[in-house]
Amino acid sequence: MRIGIIGTGTVGQTLGTKLVALGHEVTLGSRSKGNAAAADWAERSGPLAHPGTFAEAAAFGDLVVNATSGTVALAAVELAGAENLAGKTLLDVSNPLVFSPTGEVTLDPVNDDSVGERLQRALPDTKVVKALNTVNCEVMVDPGRVPGAHQLFVAGDDADGKARVVALLTEFGWPAADILDLGGIDAARSLEMLMPFWLRLMRHYGHADFNYSIRTAR
Amino acid sequence: MRIGIIGTGTVGQTLGTKLVALGHEVTLGSRSKGNAAAADWAERSGPLAHPGTFAEAAAFGDLVVNATSGTVALAAVELAGAENLAGKTLLDVSNPLVFSPTGEVTLDPVNDDSVGERLQRALPDTKVVKALNTVNCEVMVDPGRVPGAHQLFVAGDDADGKARVVALLTEFGWPAADILDLGGIDAARSLEMLMPFWLRLMRHYGHADFNYSIRTAR
Repeated sequence: MRIGIIGTGTVGQTLGTKLVALGHEVTLGSRSKGNAAAADWAERSGPLAHPGTFAEAAAFGDLVVNATSGTVALAAVELAGAENLAGKTLLDVSNPLVFSPTGEVTLDPVNDDSVGERLQRALPDTKVVKALNTVNCEVMVDPGRVPGAHQLFVAGDDADGKARVVALLTEFGWPAADILDLGGIDAARSLEMLMPFWLRLMRHYGHADFNYSIRTAR
Repeated sequence: MRIGIIGTGTVGQTLGTKLVALGHEVTLGSRSKGNAAAADWAERSGPLAHPGTFAEAAAFGDLVVNATSGTVALAAVELAGAENLAGKTLLDVSNPLVFSPTGEVTLDPVNDDSVGERLQRALPDTKVVKALNTVNCEVMVDPGRVPGAHQLFVAGDDADGKARVVALLTEFGWPAADILDLGGIDAARSLEMLMPFWLRLMRHYGHADFNYSIRTAR
């Protein structure tokens, strides 16, 4: 499959490298043309890997991933162009973390809105699916880093979009039985609001190789 | 131990009944004197169970539990009286859920504040500890309702207060190894912000007998 990734940070590169290893063709998109991070990644990653702009990555992908920071995601997809994303699935893996000078971390948006919902409102012709934002990027593409069964969660308004994302996640190694559908894109806010808890757990454990396993009576 | 419970709802009564069963003496406190719910509970629960006001419950307890809704918790502890809570541990199990007419659930406070932090600021001479707000009240007092190992989380500024709460939770049946200390009372916001996710999971499973098990690599 042809996949576009919006964002050249650690998350975008980690996802891109895994997708290329799985045989997908990937364009890693940066804000400005000729970005060094995207070019370096593509050069390291072989013939299936291409650098591009946000718009080039969006136009390239049959499925597109938002791997920018959640606080700039809306601006990034505007640069990517709604026309380049129309009819496609947009997998949003971002969290809207705001880091204060004192080290405090908050979310914006939060509580009555989310990045996932904002992207869906901005892109009514795109199937926005929230997923993967609840784990570190190394765990995203290698769930075996965490022992035992543990879960991912998807949220989105479009069943086909969610099915496409679930299929991709199973390629990453996530058993379909461990991917829980939490409902419409408005459930994205509940997934984004896990981040403060996740950050506390990371501090507690001293690493990011952990995930949630939901224990249930029946 | 003498325990005061502020709040006569399902959570307060469930905790009170368990505490009495464990041999503790409990005053279940209501906003107004002569409250029927508190009187009925005490009559059903035997000689270790007493009804009272918020202030009487606070004055009675060596340890006090806030089991009111998080949106009214601050007003409830003001009625309980800072002088009745001074030097004591206050276990805050509440969540600040706001239910809109459309069925949407949000939190207030959220993100940069929490009920736990508000209570601690209002009661500087009290050891406020956040715990138990991440599970249904039936699971709070009977962790075996959920199979396997699963976790609780405590947050508070005072180590002695947290130790007292952990001791009480082990009496409820929670293994000490499954109670994670997430830090100061400011970690309460991360625990309260789990509620939207918890509500989505409850909708997904169709019941509340579930909990988080954190899987970790090391």
